[in-house]
This record gives sequence, C-alpha cells and structure tokens, in this order.
Amino acid sequence: MEKVTRMGVSLDPELLKEFDAYIGTHRYTNRSEAIRDLIRDALATEEWAKGTGTVVGTITVVYDHDAHQVVDKLTKIQHRHHHSVHSTTHVHLDEHMCLEVIVVQGRPKDVLALADSVKATKGVKHAQLARTAGK
Amino acid sequence: MEKVTRMGVSLDPELLKEFDAYIGTHRYTNRSEAIRDLIRDALATEEWAKGTGTVVGTITVVYDHDAHQVVDKLTKIQHRHHHSVHSTTHVHLDEHMCLEVIVVQGRPKDVLALADSVKATKGVKHAQLARTAGK
Amino acid sequence: MEKVTRMGVSLDPELLKEFDAYIGTHRYTNRSEAIRDLIRDALATEEWAKGTGTVVGTITVVYDHDAHQVVDKLTKIQHRHHHSVHSTTHVHLDEHMCLEVIVVQGRPKDVLALADSVKATKGVKHAQLARTAGK
Amino acid sequence: MEKVTRMGVSLDPELLKEFDAYIGTHRYTNRSEAIRDLIRDALATEEWAKGTGTVVGTITVVYDHDAHQVVDKLTKIQHRHHHSVHSTTHVHLDEHMCLEVIVVQGRPKDVLALADSVKATKGVKHAQLARTAGK
Repeated sequence: MEKVTRMGVSLDPELLKEFDAYIGTHRYTNRSEAIRDLIRDALATEEWAKGTGTVVGTITVVYDHDAHQVVDKLTKIQHRHHHSVHSTTHVHLDEHMCLEVIVVQGRPKDVLALADSVKATKGVKHAQLARTAGK
Repeated sequence: MEKVTRMGVSLDPELLKEFDAYIGTHRYTNRSEAIRDLIRDALATEEWAKGTGTVVGTITVVYDHDAHQVVDKLTKIQHRHHHSVHSTTHVHLDEHMCLEVIVVQGRPKDVLALADSVKATKGVKHAQLARTAGK
Repeated sequence: MEKVTRMGVSLDPELLKEFDAYIGTHRYTNRSEAIRDLIRDALATEEWAKGTGTVVGTITVVYDHDAHQVVDKLTKIQHRHHHSVHSTTHVHLDEHMCLEVIVVQGRPKDVLALADSVKATKGVKHAQLARTAGK
Repeated sequence: MEKVTRMGVSLDPELLKEFDAYIGTHRYTNRSEAIRDLIRDALATEEWAKGTGTVVGTITVVYDHDAHQVVDKLTKIQHRHHHSVHSTTHVHLDEHMCLEVIVVQGRPKDVLALADSVKATKGVKHAQLARTAGK
C-alpha cells in the first residue's frame, strides 16, 4: 500500500480552466496526476543540474552500422565507462541504420562524459541523452 | 479582489518532501505559488507549440554595432515586421557590444519568422527568443 | 565508401578559439565532427516540430512495479499504439523501481500521443521522450 | 575591419542537402552564417552551465499590475540584486497586464537567484530567463 498526502493548492479560476484543458489534451485522468508529473519533471531537471547524487537516464544513438567501425568503437566506449552503463539494447531500423539505447546510471559527471564520448564518435548520426530520475 | 479556487492534490510523502526542498531552493513562499508556476510554464510552452492565438515574448539580440551595418538592418527588419513588434529597448554592454530587447506580440508564426530574420542577420552575435504568454 | 562534400566556413578568430575549447571539452576528434553534430541536432528538432514525415525516438519510463498495476497498463497502452512501437526493453533498477525504454517510430503526432498516454499512467514516476531522427 | 578565419568542414552530401533546406527555411544568407549561429548557441548554453565568468541575458516578466503590490515587490527585488541588473523596460500589454524586461549581467549564480526571486513573486504570471552571452 502506498501512503498518500493531500495538500491544497489555490489557483485563480481562469488558470484552472486552462489547466483543465491541458489535462484533457494530455490524457491525464485527474489533476493530481498532471501536477505530480510537472513536479517530477522539475525535480529531475534539478537533480541533473546539481551534479551530485545518482541519476538515471538513457542515451539513444542512431548510426549506420556499415561505416567507420562504429559498432566496435561504441562497444569500446561502453566498456571504458562500464560503471555508468546498466545495459544496452540494439534495434535494426532498416538495412543500414541502427538505433542503440544505453541505459545509464551513475554520477551526472560520469554519465555526461559517456554521452559526450558517444556523440563525438565518428559514424554516429545522432545521439541524445534523456535525463530521468530513479525515484 | 482576485477570486481564487482551491483544489486538492494528492502526493506520496516522499515526493512532497523533495518538492518542499525544491520550493526552498527556488524561494517560493508556498506550495501553491510553485505549482502555479509549473502550470504556467506548461501552458506557455503549449500555446507556442499550438501555433494559434496570440503569444507574447521577447527577442534578445547581442551585436557589435560597428560591424556590417547591423543597426540599419535590424531597424529595417523590425519595420517590415511592425505588426509583431511592440517596442524595442537598447542597452550598451560595453564600447562595442549592444544588447537589444524586442518585445513581440502576435501570431506564433509571425513572431517566429521575425526571430529567424533577426538571428540570420550578418553581424548579430546571438539572438534568443523567450516565449511567454499574455495571460 | 561514403562520399563526402567539403564546404568552407568563415568565422572570426575569437569565435573559432572558443569553439576549439568547446570541441576539446566535448571530446570531438575534429571540427567537422562537432559541426555535423550541431547540424543534426538542429535538423532533428526541426523534423519533430514540423510534424510530418517519420520520426524515431525513445520513451524512457520509470515506475514502481508494485503499484497500481502499472505493468499491465503500460502493456495495454503499447498494444493500442503498436504501429508506433518498435520494441521495448525492461531494466530492473532496484527491488522496486523499473526502467522501461520504448523505441518509437512513426508520425510525430502518433508518437506524441503515445508518450502522453505513458506519462499520464497512474504509477509512472517519470517518463521522457528523446527525439532523434532516423537519417 | 573584422578579421575572418576560414575552415573546411566535410559533410556527407545528404546531410548537406537537408542543411541547405534548413538554411532556406530560417532565412540565413549563407551556410557560414547558419553555422556561426549553431556554434554561438552551443557556446552560450555552455557558458551558463559552467557557472563561471560573466553572462548576459534578460528576464521577461508578465504580471497584473493591480494585484498583490507586485510592482513594489519587483522593484525591491531588483534593488536588492542591483549588481546583476543592468536596466529594466516596462511595456503595457493591455489594461491590466504588464510585461517587464530586466536586462541582467553578472555571475550565473547571482543572475539565477534573481530570476528565481522574480518567478517566485506572488502576482507574477510568468517569468522567463533568456540566456545569451556578451561576446
């Protein structure tokens, strides 16, 4: 069973009306769910910006597997940074293009260094870090 | 007198504790104020993304006034887009560098076209659009 | 063999000096690599904003698997949106928390609707969409 | 006269073709102009993230001047942070709503604290910090 705390929030009626429309568009079942989401987004941004503690996220990499020995290079980079790598999934987008998702967990500094190394690898078309939080 | 509506939000206690720390760091006087801010940020982002209605914002431009007749060019661009320009303020950062703030109001499409024109002007060092909302 | 086009870019020396420092910090092997990355970031942002064509990305979801039948709900959502879902990977972060990465491919509109549904699911702690591009 | 350095950038032809379309959409006169802009965006983001040196930017504030003595409060905040405030411009959006642009210059830490104080002021509808750079 999860415990839940209830708090009151005061809003002027016009803002609430606009927020209810937003809730509808984004498919939330109720206002609490939507507000929790806004709070968690703000906290995750904060956690990554502070640079301390342990963060969780993913690095999504798109590359052409035929070019520049990129598979080899990405494998080496991940082993060098194995303390920050939880696991990796490989997806074949088409005949040439691959998408790889690296699940990362560790100190923000280490994870950002890993993401930089991946981004800077010759042959990588695009790489993006999603910053989430483990709690 | 402003009318105010009160709504209840349920949160698990751990999330609330982290949010209270966030509120302290960011100097909010109470939780409602912080939540209203998160809501307004989300709504402003939405309004600009939808592309309809009237939006409000500012374009901040930094440039070297000695180079490339940039003052003339920026003046011409603003006149060409005068329907989207509310007013402009000029600040002297140092002997060479100027900062200009263009207050913009209009359809997202028109405002974005103006921002693109400003950004693309030879001699402009940096330009950035702040997307806010009039409500 | 990949064909390569060469183009000339003119920069004032001070900007180039700062850019070279940036290249060092971010571990790029040369300027071309760094510039290609900036270009691809700009193009991926554009592609998602335009809303047409096919985009590729990932949704990273963090949740407590004990709560609110969230596993069931996420499975149902992914089946309902199976045209946009390429594959999903599940990672056990600790005794309670799970991280799931959904690889998405499709029209921006459909992918955004799926991301909204995932985010709005009761029990999901955090969800984030990484917007990349398949080319 | 501004000195200019020329550097060569190699791109695969398909990426260049897409980039040329991007340049057209965003009204750049040539590729160098567009690339300089991408570089400056990356450098400004970096400068703010590093937290050292002097940054330049603007805080755009929207508020209802009738409510909560917000004008008084904003004036007091700006005086308390006068080392970071360069100047302020006031715009009347309609009968009730005001937009104020505060030009800020100083250490990132101080400027962020000022932006937080402005955002957290009761009566402020929306506030946004535009992060640019003075060089």
